Amino acid sequence: MFLAMNRFKVALGKEDDFINIWKNRDSYLEGVPGFVSFNLLRGETNEDHTLFSSHATWESRQAFEDWTKSEAFRNAHKNAGSAKDIYNGHPKLELFDAVI
Amino acid sequence: MFLAMNRFKVALGKEDDFINIWKNRDSYLEGVPGFVSFNLLRGETNEDHTLFSSHATWESRQAFEDWTKSEAFRNAHKNAGSAKDIYNGHPKLELFDAVI
Repeated sequence: MFLAMNRFKVALGKEDDFINIWKNRDSYLEGVPGFVSFNLLRGETNEDHTLFSSHATWESRQAFEDWTKSEAFRNAHKNAGSAKDIYNGHPKLELFDAVI
Repeated sequence: MFLAMNRFKVALGKEDDFINIWKNRDSYLEGVPGFVSFNLLRGETNEDHTLFSSHATWESRQAFEDWTKSEAFRNAHKNAGSAKDIYNGHPKLELFDAVI
């Protein structure tokens, strides 16, 4: 199992905007080979942002990497970078291999 | 769905020791009400540590909080803090509610 996690610092008061972007977005993930599941997670709020994390689970790192080179990936990310005012800084991608 | 994530910075060369601690540990999680699943994830290695993340999924935040007050939790953590030399700093607990 392989997990691609993206961490977002969302500006205070912009949390609902951020969630709505994800709810209305076509991820083009259904049917992608090796894709297992997706969750958007809301973390804690501190003095200047709310932490969110997107978790995409894949059967393998290779399946994830193949997807990043696909037409489906380009379609899913064509609007990435709009609504920049809702973020405090860039999202941070972290990749993990399951060991247990 | 609720996720309790603990992030560990493991000293370089100590990764296998860390994994073995988890593999040989009794988490006492099976049968705990509301517990869904557990994964230990290995992230990227940088100049001074390798990032690991433990992901415990629960049906609800309440189920997680009830567990932290239980005998099972005390049993699972009675040896926490041993082998401190394998860590660079304290683990960081982050709690998330699924919004998608």
